[in-house]
Amino acid sequence: METMPANPVPTLEPSVLPVPRDGIAGAAPYGAPQLEVAHALNVNENPYGPSPELAEAIGSAAAEAAVGLNRYPDREALALRAALGTYLAAESGIGAPEAHEVWAANGSNEIMHQLLLAYGGPGRTALGFTPHYSMYPEYARDTYTAWVTAERGPAPDFALTAEAVTAAIAAHRPSIVVLTSPNNPTGTALGLDVVEAAAAALAPTRGLLVVDEAYGEFRRDGVPSALTLRAKHPNLVVTRTMSKAFALAGARLGYLVADPAIVDAVRVVRLPYHLSAVTQAVARTALAHREELLGKVALLRSERDALATHLAARGHEVAPSDANFILFRSFTDRDAVFEGLLARGVLIRAVGPAGWLRVSLGTPEDNAAFRTALEEADPR
Amino acid sequence: METMPANPVPTLEPSVLPVPRDGIAGAAPYGAPQLEVAHALNVNENPYGPSPELAEAIGSAAAEAAVGLNRYPDREALALRAALGTYLAAESGIGAPEAHEVWAANGSNEIMHQLLLAYGGPGRTALGFTPHYSMYPEYARDTYTAWVTAERGPAPDFALTAEAVTAAIAAHRPSIVVLTSPNNPTGTALGLDVVEAAAAALAPTRGLLVVDEAYGEFRRDGVPSALTLRAKHPNLVVTRTMSKAFALAGARLGYLVADPAIVDAVRVVRLPYHLSAVTQAVARTALAHREELLGKVALLRSERDALATHLAARGHEVAPSDANFILFRSFTDRDAVFEGLLARGVLIRAVGPAGWLRVSLGTPEDNAAFRTALEEADPR
Repeated sequence: METMPANPVPTLEPSVLPVPRDGIAGAAPYGAPQLEVAHALNVNENPYGPSPELAEAIGSAAAEAAVGLNRYPDREALALRAALGTYLAAESGIGAPEAHEVWAANGSNEIMHQLLLAYGGPGRTALGFTPHYSMYPEYARDTYTAWVTAERGPAPDFALTAEAVTAAIAAHRPSIVVLTSPNNPTGTALGLDVVEAAAAALAPTRGLLVVDEAYGEFRRDGVPSALTLRAKHPNLVVTRTMSKAFALAGARLGYLVADPAIVDAVRVVRLPYHLSAVTQAVARTALAHREELLGKVALLRSERDALATHLAARGHEVAPSDANFILFRSFTDRDAVFEGLLARGVLIRAVGPAGWLRVSLGTPEDNAAFRTALEEADPR
Repeated sequence: METMPANPVPTLEPSVLPVPRDGIAGAAPYGAPQLEVAHALNVNENPYGPSPELAEAIGSAAAEAAVGLNRYPDREALALRAALGTYLAAESGIGAPEAHEVWAANGSNEIMHQLLLAYGGPGRTALGFTPHYSMYPEYARDTYTAWVTAERGPAPDFALTAEAVTAAIAAHRPSIVVLTSPNNPTGTALGLDVVEAAAAALAPTRGLLVVDEAYGEFRRDGVPSALTLRAKHPNLVVTRTMSKAFALAGARLGYLVADPAIVDAVRVVRLPYHLSAVTQAVARTALAHREELLGKVALLRSERDALATHLAARGHEVAPSDANFILFRSFTDRDAVFEGLLARGVLIRAVGPAGWLRVSLGTPEDNAAFRTALEEADPR
C-alpha cells in the first residue's frame, strides 16, 4: 500500500475553485504514512490476522448479508449492540450493558466525532491531557469545539492525578473531558480515582466525561476498566474499539457504553444508516469468535513486558505500558533513529514528546527485528 | 426489522446527565420507520437484491479482505475510486475521471456531510430548493452551516429554472448550492442550463455547486448528467450513490466527482480510515458485476412510466419522474391514505408538499399490490 500521491496541479484556473472554510485549504489529511515494510509497528495494529476458519466465517456472514444488500441496513444495529454489551460484561466483570446503553459506529473515530458533535460545538470546550492521541484536536476542529489541554506528569510515568484533573477542569470549565486509559502514546492506564474525580468535577456543570479505552484489553492484571464506574457516574462514557485487541482495524468498528440518554443524543447526530449491513455482520461474527481473536492478547502483553525490560536494560527511558505499544526515549535524534529503523524494514512512529518514539508490539519475529535494527539505528 | 424502542426512562437522576448542545436534546433521530411489511416502497430501495452468484462473489471478496482485517484499510481507497471513475465514463458518456477526481465514503450521506464540513461552517450559508431531500438541513445543522431555501416551481412539474436559481443565489450569496437531479421527492431532472447557470452564478464568489445525482441512473433517455459539465465548471461536484441503481443500500457507498482541489479539501476533513476494507472490497465486487446489478434499471424505469400513466388515468396529479419513485397527489387526506395502504401491507412515504405521497417502484408484484391497495385506500 502506498501513500496517496500528491494530486497533480489542477489544469483549470485555481482562482475559480471554491474556497474551503478556514483551516482546511492546504492542510494535510491526518494519518501515518501507509508504507510497504517488512515490520509495520507504527499504528498499534494487532499483528495477528483472523485464522483461515474465521476469515471463511466472515466471508459467509458477508455473503448472507449480501442477499439483502438492496435494502438499507438496520439503522439501530440492535443485535450488534447487544452482542457488544455481552462481550464487555465478560471482559470487564460488569453487569452486561443492554443494547440501548451501547452505541456502535465506523471506528472509534466516528464515535468520538459523534460525541463531540452532540456535546461540543461553538462556545463549548473540550479538555484533554498531553501527550494525547493526535486525532483529538481534529474531532474538535470538525465540530467547532475549542480544544484545550493540560499536561500529564513528567516522563517516564506521564502520570495523571486526580488533583491535576480536578484543577484543569476548574480552570477550563469544559463541556467535555477526554481521558485515555491506557493513554496513547504513553501507554499509561489511569487509576479509577482519577476517573471518579473527573466525573465528580464535571457533574455540577453537567459536563461529559469520555474515557477512551481503545487499548483497554491490553491493561495489566489488576488494572480495572472505567466501565466499573458506570452505575455511579451517569455522565461517564467509555469508548472501545474492535481495531486493537480484536484485530479488526480493517473492519472499522468502534463503540461506546453510556447512559441511554447519552446514546439518544448521539442517535440524533449520527448519519442515518451509518453502519453497513456487512459491517454489522462482520463485527457480530468476530464477537462470536472472540476466544480466537482475543487469544493473542496474552502473548502481546508478555511481548510488551519483555520489550520494555529489554529497552530499559539498554538504558532507554521507557514509559510503563498497559497497551500494545511502548513509548521510549531514543539516545540520539529521534528522526534519525526513525529513519535508521525504516531503512532496516522496521516502521515505527515518531510521536509524543520530543526525543521519544513509539513502537507497536508485533509478532515475536517483528519484535526481534526491531531489537536488532535498534542496535544499529540507535547504538548505546 | 423493527423500529428502535424508546429507551426506558433513565433510572439515574436526569439532572446530573450531560447537556447536549442546542437543538439535540429531545430531537428525533432522522429516518423513516423500519417496519416489516409485504411491500416496502418507502425509501426508494431497489427491490432486486444480488443474485446468488453475486452474493457468493461478495462473500468471497469479504473473506479475502478478512485475512488482512487486523491491518487498517487503505485510507485512500484508490482502487475503488479508479473503478468508480471507469464506471461513470461508461454510464454518462464522459471521459473517465481519474482516481484523484473521485472520492468515496459511507453513503452519500457521509459525502454530503464531508462537503458541508469542508465548505460550510459558521457564517456560511447553503442553499437548496424545496421540496428537497429531508436530510439536507441535518447536514447543515451538524456542520453549523445556515440552511436557506427557495421554492421550486408549482406542481405537478416542480420545475427549477435557470432564472430562479440565479435569483436565489443573488439573494442569499451562499457558499454552497445543492441541486438535486433527479430531485427527491419530486423525481424532477434538471436541464443542464440550470446547472450551468448555478455554476456561473457561484463562480465570482468562489462558491461550491453540488449536484446530487443519487437517482441519476434512472433518468429518461436523452436526459444528460451534470457530469458532462465538469470540464467547464471546476466549482461543480456531482455526487452519486451505489444505494439505488446498484441495489447496494445496505453496503453504504456514496461517491463524488470533482476537481482534485475539492477532493483534497474533503480529504482533510474525512475521518481517517473512514471506509472499511470490507466495504471497499464489496463495492469493487459490485462494480465488477455492474451488468447484472444495473440490468434491472430498465425494468424499473418502464414500471415507473407505467405506474405514472396508471396514476394519471386514475385522475391523480403526478409529478413527471426521472427517478425510481413517483410523487403523486392523493384524492383524500394523505395520512389516511398512507395508513390505509399500510393496513394492506404497502408502506410508502408521506413526504413532499401537503397532500402528496411518494411511492418507490418495486417489483411488478409490489407495484400491482400498490395499485390494488390504492383502489381501496384512496378511492376515486
